[in-house]
Amino acid sequence: MRAIETTTILPMEAAEASVREALADQGFGVLTEIDVAATLKAKLGVERPALKILGACNPTFAQQALELDESVSLLLPCNVVLADMGQGTKISAADPRQLMTGHAFQALANDAAERLAAALAAVPST
Amino acid sequence: MRAIETTTILPMEAAEASVREALADQGFGVLTEIDVAATLKAKLGVERPALKILGACNPTFAQQALELDESVSLLLPCNVVLADMGQGTKISAADPRQLMTGHAFQALANDAAERLAAALAAVPST
Repeated sequence: MRAIETTTILPMEAAEASVREALADQGFGVLTEIDVAATLKAKLGVERPALKILGACNPTFAQQALELDESVSLLLPCNVVLADMGQGTKISAADPRQLMTGHAFQALANDAAERLAAALAAVPST
Repeated sequence: MRAIETTTILPMEAAEASVREALADQGFGVLTEIDVAATLKAKLGVERPALKILGACNPTFAQQALELDESVSLLLPCNVVLADMGQGTKISAADPRQLMTGHAFQALANDAAERLAAALAAVPST
């Protein structure tokens, strides 16, 4: 799927701190956190580069979306993924315009996408 | 979006216990949990019927999907949503066939969907 993406020279931990702050500035709290690499190592013994999923949610957008169609809960929260690139970190956010495709969601999905893009743009690239 | 759904006469708490057990039987752990109603009440003061999102993940499926295309992390884990219907609970799971649409994912998405459907079918309806 198409994502909102950026890359930064910051290592995972600093990139995560930066994107969390930037998400908060845009009204998104981080409600969930999955350390994918640690989970796959623990469950399957698989070694892989660091990969973390943050579940970001802007309560106002979430409430509006749920009022339009409660089944949007199948797609909440919005994943913001941090992937260790060796020399820095790739940060990707699921694009709400790809997930909430109905006409009724259009304005809301555009607003949410703009704010996520602003958050990712606020992470220093170097 | 299309979902895998069931309804049960069980109230939320018992329905959650039942579906967690059924998910475990199908190899899905619950990695995240969002009490949507409590979050919206705390953040916005909004009152709404109980709504909870469980983030379910089958590590073997997740690993296979990530090997095919790491951007699948934008769609993990698989949401299993519990909604209070007053007289019972609706349980919905995001359908992996709707989320992982590429040809390469077809067999994997079918397997995951079958297991989620089996888990939901194992929750007693009465």
